[in-house]
Amino acid sequence: MNCPIPISEYPVITMAHGSGGRLSHQLIDMMFRPAFANEQLDAGHDGAVVSSAEGRLAFTTDSFVVKPIFFPGGNIGDLAVNGTVNDLACCGARPDYLSVGMILEEGLPMEDLWKIVLAMKGAADRAGVRIVTGDTKVVDHGSGDKIFINTSGIGRVREGVRIDPAGCRDGDRIIVSGFIGDHGVAIMSAREGLQFETSIESDTAPLNGLVDAILDVCPGISVLRDPTRGGVATTLNEISRSSGMGMVLHENSLPVRDEVRGACEVLGLDPLYVANEGKLLAIVPEKDSARVLDAMKNHPLGSDAALIGRVTADHPSIVRITTTIGSSRIIDMLTGEQLPRIC
Amino acid sequence: MNCPIPISEYPVITMAHGSGGRLSHQLIDMMFRPAFANEQLDAGHDGAVVSSAEGRLAFTTDSFVVKPIFFPGGNIGDLAVNGTVNDLACCGARPDYLSVGMILEEGLPMEDLWKIVLAMKGAADRAGVRIVTGDTKVVDHGSGDKIFINTSGIGRVREGVRIDPAGCRDGDRIIVSGFIGDHGVAIMSAREGLQFETSIESDTAPLNGLVDAILDVCPGISVLRDPTRGGVATTLNEISRSSGMGMVLHENSLPVRDEVRGACEVLGLDPLYVANEGKLLAIVPEKDSARVLDAMKNHPLGSDAALIGRVTADHPSIVRITTTIGSSRIIDMLTGEQLPRIC
Repeated sequence: MNCPIPISEYPVITMAHGSGGRLSHQLIDMMFRPAFANEQLDAGHDGAVVSSAEGRLAFTTDSFVVKPIFFPGGNIGDLAVNGTVNDLACCGARPDYLSVGMILEEGLPMEDLWKIVLAMKGAADRAGVRIVTGDTKVVDHGSGDKIFINTSGIGRVREGVRIDPAGCRDGDRIIVSGFIGDHGVAIMSAREGLQFETSIESDTAPLNGLVDAILDVCPGISVLRDPTRGGVATTLNEISRSSGMGMVLHENSLPVRDEVRGACEVLGLDPLYVANEGKLLAIVPEKDSARVLDAMKNHPLGSDAALIGRVTADHPSIVRITTTIGSSRIIDMLTGEQLPRIC
Repeated sequence: MNCPIPISEYPVITMAHGSGGRLSHQLIDMMFRPAFANEQLDAGHDGAVVSSAEGRLAFTTDSFVVKPIFFPGGNIGDLAVNGTVNDLACCGARPDYLSVGMILEEGLPMEDLWKIVLAMKGAADRAGVRIVTGDTKVVDHGSGDKIFINTSGIGRVREGVRIDPAGCRDGDRIIVSGFIGDHGVAIMSAREGLQFETSIESDTAPLNGLVDAILDVCPGISVLRDPTRGGVATTLNEISRSSGMGMVLHENSLPVRDEVRGACEVLGLDPLYVANEGKLLAIVPEKDSARVLDAMKNHPLGSDAALIGRVTADHPSIVRITTTIGSSRIIDMLTGEQLPRIC
């Protein structure tokens, strides 16, 4: 699809696109509203009005500042939609509605904005969510970096589902839905000045379908979490802290692509700390683990799922990994900054 | 209250505060969570789970990039909370929950962040909303501008209330809740290099209480809108377009402070286009207008409310103003950029 705003006349975003006046309305009326078309957006209110049912609602927000904005496997647009879809899914909710808040830098090529909008539309369609309300601001050149996107979302929590890290029990199994580290390595390889190339693509994807498949076979699951910024290590540390339980990982069971492992060696990174954008961690009672693993493997986004460890009461709030040679070390929360602006 | 993070050790925001690792958690655990304390935030999920009732829900989002971040009458923090509270209120909803997405620039003084967080907490308390979920990103120095804040919000729409510009009727009255242009002039006066000084403060305030008072006496009201970016002129043009009705304003009934009028003359601005952050426009049937005006005047945030014009079928989708000398001119939507980064 061609950019609906004439590029020859409006080649880049200008301050006037953020004025709330004529050019702001042109962006909304010619680009955003047709792309995301739905009745709530069409109403043109300051907010969307949607119907709600009795029950529980999940509400989440995420801002995306990834650099570069286009990378192998996606761009900031689908990343932003999938990110919030996944946060809702990991609350046990079915994502229904998203909001989009864009902060554009003066000078952003109109064509780039259009590519990003198309990616958002595609991702929303795939996840089955509606973008129902939005906001656009423009900052002067040098006060931003091309485009930042906030997506917030709401969704209904599935009945009977209660995701709560405090529900982790000694002996529960830890499952990851596929290869780890792809997103982080894809972003790093797309950055200027890096000395390596890979064919690794970001794993950005909507996980709500996979979560549905898991909850169908194990509605009593206590932990679902997408290990984004900070990777699997940071996410498990968070769960370990909030549950007070320890975790043990088996190094040789971690699914890592050879290329990701190679790139991590070059960059001095540990794949356990590298961001994922289409993977989840599930912590399930031992008795359910085979069923959950099967359900994941039968879903296209979980075909490489693996059992990677277990919960233990032996070393509270500490995550350890046992290596292939039989030794064991502590996997701590990330200190300092490893991969800035990865999402 | 003193900044809960030791300034001597962490004087400014660093990239590591956006890593998702130890310093990210320090910010959340020591600053955000205690300040905004509530059970949903304490749960520490990727999103908040709240209970929902059957009915209609309003959902809205706004990003704030105001410059400077501290200005007479407020800062970007209370502005961001009030802005989303007001968008929900103008959907006829009672604001319940907010999300906060912060994009911090490396080098932001920790003390400034704390002042902003305190302002957000104060504004949320005044409006009676809870900040239940959030996200923090950090961009490298020069890729942002101190701090950008996205607030999204949800609230229940009051039963029987149906805000819809299409409900405007010939003869309806247009009421504004008080003096216009204060926010825009306060921001301009705070910018460096300007040749004038005023004692004008931003009018940033939560309008949900005022909206409640209006809906109590006139639940059938068709239009409530806060005239922020682009001011009263732009907002009325939007309503005029979506309703297909014309509007007539009476210049001598517009409430404008002398100082705002003076500052606008110096800056070459028309107060009708200058942003407000604590005012609303109500369009009400003629028979209800006295009652609504009374209700507004009895509320502290509506004491200077005034009837400023009426809806007409005479010139569809066009807003006109009749001047004090009896002439009349068209008030069009803003073309170009008048006041960049006003909110």
